[in-house]
Amino acid sequence: MDDGGGLGREMHDLIRTLYPICRSITGNGVRTSLEIIGRAIPLKWTEVPSGTDVFDWRVPREWNIRDAYVKNSRGERVIDFRACNLHVLNYSTPVKRSMSIAELRDHLFAIPEHPSWIPYRTSYYTDAWGFCVTQQQLDALTEESYEVCIDSTLSEGSLTYAECCLPGMTTEEVLVSCHVCHPSLCNDNLSGISVAVFLARHLLSRERRLSYRFLFIPGTIGAIAWLALNRKEALSISHGLVLTCVGDGGAFHYKKSRRGNTEVDRAVAHVLRVRGAAHEILEFSPYGYDERQFCSPGFNLPVGCLMRSMWGQFPEYHTSADDLEFVTPKALQESFETCRAVLDVLEGNHTYQRSDPYCEPALGRRGLYRSSGRQPGVENLARLWVLNLADGAHSLLDIAERSGLSFSAIYEAAAELARHGLLVDHAPVPNARH
Amino acid sequence: MDDGGGLGREMHDLIRTLYPICRSITGNGVRTSLEIIGRAIPLKWTEVPSGTDVFDWRVPREWNIRDAYVKNSRGERVIDFRACNLHVLNYSTPVKRSMSIAELRDHLFAIPEHPSWIPYRTSYYTDAWGFCVTQQQLDALTEESYEVCIDSTLSEGSLTYAECCLPGMTTEEVLVSCHVCHPSLCNDNLSGISVAVFLARHLLSRERRLSYRFLFIPGTIGAIAWLALNRKEALSISHGLVLTCVGDGGAFHYKKSRRGNTEVDRAVAHVLRVRGAAHEILEFSPYGYDERQFCSPGFNLPVGCLMRSMWGQFPEYHTSADDLEFVTPKALQESFETCRAVLDVLEGNHTYQRSDPYCEPALGRRGLYRSSGRQPGVENLARLWVLNLADGAHSLLDIAERSGLSFSAIYEAAAELARHGLLVDHAPVPNARH
Amino acid sequence: MDDGGGLGREMHDLIRTLYPICRSITGNGVRTSLEIIGRAIPLKWTEVPSGTDVFDWRVPREWNIRDAYVKNSRGERVIDFRACNLHVLNYSTPVKRSMSIAELRDHLFAIPEHPSWIPYRTSYYTDAWGFCVTQQQLDALTEESYEVCIDSTLSEGSLTYAECCLPGMTTEEVLVSCHVCHPSLCNDNLSGISVAVFLARHLLSRERRLSYRFLFIPGTIGAIAWLALNRKEALSISHGLVLTCVGDGGAFHYKKSRRGNTEVDRAVAHVLRVRGAAHEILEFSPYGYDERQFCSPGFNLPVGCLMRSMWGQFPEYHTSADDLEFVTPKALQESFETCRAVLDVLEGNHTYQRSDPYCEPALGRRGLYRSSGRQPGVENLARLWVLNLADGAHSLLDIAERSGLSFSAIYEAAAELARHGLLVDHAPVPNARH
Repeated sequence: MDDGGGLGREMHDLIRTLYPICRSITGNGVRTSLEIIGRAIPLKWTEVPSGTDVFDWRVPREWNIRDAYVKNSRGERVIDFRACNLHVLNYSTPVKRSMSIAELRDHLFAIPEHPSWIPYRTSYYTDAWGFCVTQQQLDALTEESYEVCIDSTLSEGSLTYAECCLPGMTTEEVLVSCHVCHPSLCNDNLSGISVAVFLARHLLSRERRLSYRFLFIPGTIGAIAWLALNRKEALSISHGLVLTCVGDGGAFHYKKSRRGNTEVDRAVAHVLRVRGAAHEILEFSPYGYDERQFCSPGFNLPVGCLMRSMWGQFPEYHTSADDLEFVTPKALQESFETCRAVLDVLEGNHTYQRSDPYCEPALGRRGLYRSSGRQPGVENLARLWVLNLADGAHSLLDIAERSGLSFSAIYEAAAELARHGLLVDHAPVPNARH
Repeated sequence: MDDGGGLGREMHDLIRTLYPICRSITGNGVRTSLEIIGRAIPLKWTEVPSGTDVFDWRVPREWNIRDAYVKNSRGERVIDFRACNLHVLNYSTPVKRSMSIAELRDHLFAIPEHPSWIPYRTSYYTDAWGFCVTQQQLDALTEESYEVCIDSTLSEGSLTYAECCLPGMTTEEVLVSCHVCHPSLCNDNLSGISVAVFLARHLLSRERRLSYRFLFIPGTIGAIAWLALNRKEALSISHGLVLTCVGDGGAFHYKKSRRGNTEVDRAVAHVLRVRGAAHEILEFSPYGYDERQFCSPGFNLPVGCLMRSMWGQFPEYHTSADDLEFVTPKALQESFETCRAVLDVLEGNHTYQRSDPYCEPALGRRGLYRSSGRQPGVENLARLWVLNLADGAHSLLDIAERSGLSFSAIYEAAAELARHGLLVDHAPVPNARH
Repeated sequence: MDDGGGLGREMHDLIRTLYPICRSITGNGVRTSLEIIGRAIPLKWTEVPSGTDVFDWRVPREWNIRDAYVKNSRGERVIDFRACNLHVLNYSTPVKRSMSIAELRDHLFAIPEHPSWIPYRTSYYTDAWGFCVTQQQLDALTEESYEVCIDSTLSEGSLTYAECCLPGMTTEEVLVSCHVCHPSLCNDNLSGISVAVFLARHLLSRERRLSYRFLFIPGTIGAIAWLALNRKEALSISHGLVLTCVGDGGAFHYKKSRRGNTEVDRAVAHVLRVRGAAHEILEFSPYGYDERQFCSPGFNLPVGCLMRSMWGQFPEYHTSADDLEFVTPKALQESFETCRAVLDVLEGNHTYQRSDPYCEPALGRRGLYRSSGRQPGVENLARLWVLNLADGAHSLLDIAERSGLSFSAIYEAAAELARHGLLVDHAPVPNARH
C-alpha cells in the first residue's frame, strides 16, 4: 500500500476515468461506471426491472440519452450535451422541435451568482425536459427561433446496482455505501466511489475478522431497492458508513447514525480526534444521503455518513465547478486513510479479560515495564489501562476513549499482554452476533 | 381570541376589580374575590370549617376585618385601613384602646430603604396585631397618646377555595393553581389569578383532549387543605403549573417540578425557547409557592411554577409598590400566550407510529415534498423528522426537542402525514393513564 | 482536638521523628517506623516471609543497610550514607572494593537541573548498586581511584506492614492507606503517614458507626501482599482513601476511584467544594499509588487518592528537597481537617424518611421555622430540603448535593427534624451490608 501520495493519485485517476460518463439513477451510464469499477474489485450486479415495487416506491422507467443540444438559426450548438452532460436536465423526456426563445427560456436553469457555472438539476419522478446553462450562455441567447433536441429515451428497463462482498471470519458485517447516480460531478460523488473502491481493494488482500459489503447504488431509489431486496442481509449490518464528498480539501464532517452512539459513531469520532485534523461531529438528521434510508425507523441501522465539506455548504455543490480540480489526490488519500483507520478500529475492537484480575501483574519481571524517568510513558500507560479495564465489560475502544490514548496504542498493548498470557480474548466467536 | 392587546387590557381590568379587596387565608375577602371570578368562569366552591385537620395542619379560625386606624390626639387617622388594606398586619387580633407612642411602636412595621412604601406582613398562626406603614408615616409620629383600633374578628368559620373543572376526552388532568390570599398586591398574585381565569375561559369553548382543573386557593393552608380533601383526585394530575408573579415586565422564570424532567417541565422549556424571549429555567427547590405542597414527597406531582420576576428578587415584592402600575396589559398577555402555548403542547403531544416503517415514503408523489432550492425548508424537514422518529417511542415533543424545530411545526407535519395515512396515532386511549 | 495550629505542629513533629530513618519495602527501617507510629495508635503487625507468593508477585529478600560511602584517595567520604540515606540506591546489593572513577560513574545518579538536590532511586527487583548524589558532588569527582562501600544485606526475612483497626457499630469499613517504604522524603510520604496517624487517634475516642482500618504498608508489594492475605476483609471495604503528598502547600487533588461515583468520591468532592479552597477532581487512571491495586478489576474497591501537589508535578518530588521545610504544620492541619470532614460525611450519611410524607409539616408550630425577612435563611432552607427529599431514596449527601448546602447544615437539619419525630431514620442496620 503506497501511503506517500501515489495512492491519492491512483484514486484521482479513477475519478478522471469516470468523470465524462453521463450517469443517472438508471441507464447505461451507471452500467459503464460499474464496468470500470469492476476492473478494480469483484462486483456482483443486480438489475431491478422498471415497475418493481420497493417499499413505498416504484422503480421508474430506464433513462438513456445519446445527444442533446440547442441550435441557433445559424445551426450552431449554443448548448451542447457533448460539451458537458450537466447541460441536460437529468431524466429529461425527449424533445425535437423548433421553438421561440420565450418558450425555451422556461426550460433553462442557470446560477446568476456564478455566471460561468452550470447547475446540476434532475426531474426523476415528474415528466419534464430542460437545459442547465451558464448565466453567460443564457445572457447570450437572442430573440430568435431555436432548434431544441434531447435525444433521450424513457422506457421499460431496469435500475442497476452492484455490490462487492468480502466475507470475513464472522458474519458481522461492515457496510460501505456510495451513490453512483450523479453525472460529471467529482466530489459529489465520484470521490466516494473512488475511496470505496480503494478500501475494498485494500481489504481484498487482508485477513478479515469482519465481513464487508460495498454498495454502489443510485441514491435514494437505489438504497430503497437494495433494502427492499435484502431485508435479511440488512440485519447483519453491524457498522456502516455512507461515503460522499470526500475528495475536497475541507474539514471532515461525520454525521452520526440515528442511534447516535454506535460503535461506528465512536470509532469515527475517535479516529478523527486522534488524527488531530479539524473536524466536526454532527448529530443525526433525516436529511442528507442514503443514511436516511438505512436509518429509517424500520431498519435503524448503525450507519453514519462521512464527508469533508458538507452538501449544500460549499458553492461548487451540484454545479459544474465540482470538477476534477475541486478534488485532490491529497484529500482523497487523507479520506482513505481516515476510513482505513476506522475499519482498523472496527476490526480490532476486541474485549479482553484479565486471566487473573487481582492487582497489577509484575510487568517488570516480564520486561513489560520500561522505566523512563518520572513519567510512565505512553507504552507503559497503555498497558496499565488495558490491565485495569480488561474486565470483560470494556472493549479496546472503550479503553481508548477512557484513557485518552489512541486505539492503536491500546490495541498494541493488549496484543502484547495477550502474548504474555495476561489477557484472555473475548472476541466474538465466528458467526455469533454480538 | 383577541391577541392584539385587548386581551391584556381585559386581564388588567380584572386585576383592577379585585385589587381593593382585603383578602387573607380565610374570610369574606376571599369569598368576594371568588364571586367576581365566578362571573367569568364556572366555579365550584368548598368551605373547610375552622378546626379541620388537614395533614399536619389545622384550619385556623376565620378572620374578618371591617376597619382599622390609629388616631392622634386631634382625632385624625394617621394610619387608616380604608386608605390601604396593607396597613393592617394581616390576621391581626382585635384592638381598641389608647396607648403611648412607645407601646404602639412595637406594633409598627416599615421599610426604611423605601420610605414611601407600605410593607405586607401577616401573622396567621401567632396571635398578634400590628400596622404596616410607610417610613414617612413612622417618622411623622410624635410623642403623644394614640387611639388604636383594629375592628377584626377571629372566630369559628371556614377556609374558602374554589375550582373550575373542565372535563376532557381523557381523565388525564392539567392542574393550574394560584393563590387568592393576598390583599392589595397585583403581581403577587392578582396576576396569576387573572391569567388563570382567562386560560380557563379560553379552554371553555375548545375541544379538550385533557381535563383541566383551575384552583383558586389560599396559599399553603389552602393547597394543603385541597390535597387533604382530594387525595384521589391528586392522582389524576398529569401536568401542573403554579402561576404567580406573571404580570410584571421581567424575564420569565420557570421552576421545574421536583422530578425535574416531566412533560410539563419540557413543554414550558420548549415554549420559552421557541418564543425566544429572555427566560431562565430553574431547578426545583422546596421554597416558593404551592408547588412546595404538590411536590412534597408523598405527592411528588409533576407541577412546576411559572413566574416572570421572582418573589423576593424585585424590590416591590410584598409592598404597596406591587400595585396596578407594576403589572401591565402587555406582560399579562405575554404570560397568557406562553401558558396557552404550553397547554397546546400538552394537548397535542401525541405519539405516532409509521404505518410502514421502512425507508422514507415517496413524499413527492403525494405532493408532500416542496422543492425549494438547495436547502430542504422547515416544512419538509419537519415531515422528515416526524417520519424518522415516528416509531411509537418518540412523542411529538421528543421530536421537536431533537430536531430543534418548533412543536407547532412538528405537530402540523404529523397531522398532514397522518391525513395521508403515513402515520398511525398512538394517542392514549380515553380514560387510560399514561 | 486543637484546631488552632497545635495539631499541625504535632503532625510535623511526628514527621521529624520519622524523617532520618532509612525505610525501604522491607527491612528494619519499616519496623522502626511502625514502632514509633505504634506509640500513638494501636497497631497489629504482620510479617510476610520472603518468597511468599502474593498474586502475580513474590515477596523479595529483606534488605538492610548499615553504612555506605565512597572514599577518595585521601580517605575522605565524598559520598556518605550517614549524611543522607537517599545517597544509596534503595535496595543496593553490597559492594566493597576500589574502582576507577570511570567504573564508579556508571553507578551514580544526579539531577543536572537541580545541582544541589539528591535524587531518590530504587532497584527492588533487579540486582544493582548505586549512589544518588548532587550534581555538585558529581562534578567535584576527580580522576582517581575510589573506595566504594555499601554495607547492605539482601537475605531471607520478611516484609512488614501494620494495621490499626477500629471497630464500629457496623462492619461497613473505611480504609485509609498510606505507604511507609520511602526513606527521607517528607511529602511523599511521611505526610500521609502523619495525617493517617492523627485521624486514627481522633477516631479512637469517638463513637463510630463505621469501622476503620488504617494500613501502613510498603507501596505496591505491600498493598498486593495485604490484598492477597485479606481477600475476605477487602470485601468489607465500603469507602477508602489513599493518602499521599498531603503536607505541602499546593491545591488539593482528589483522584476518583475506578468506579468514579462512589460515596467516598462524592464525599471528598463535596467537602472540597464546601471548604472553598482551590482543588481539582481527577478522573481515575491506573497510574499513581496503591489505589492501582485496590482498584484493579478483581477488587474494584471504592478507593480514591487524596493529594495536595501531585506526584511528578512538583520539582521536589523524589528528591532530597522533599524535606522537613517542604511540608508545613498549616498544610498538614488543613489536610487532616479535610479528611476528618470527609469521614464526618461518611459517618453521618443516613437516609431518612418522612414519618408522614404529605405536604410540609407545620414547622412554625414546633418552633422550627425562624422568620427572618424575605429570604428563608440557611437553617430553614436546610429543613425544607430535608423534608422534601426524605423519601427513603435520598441520602443526606444526596440532599446536600442537590440543595447546594453543606452536608453539616443538612445533617443538623435532619437531626433536629428527627428529634421532633418528623423523620424516621433508615440508617443501615448494624452488620448489614448496604
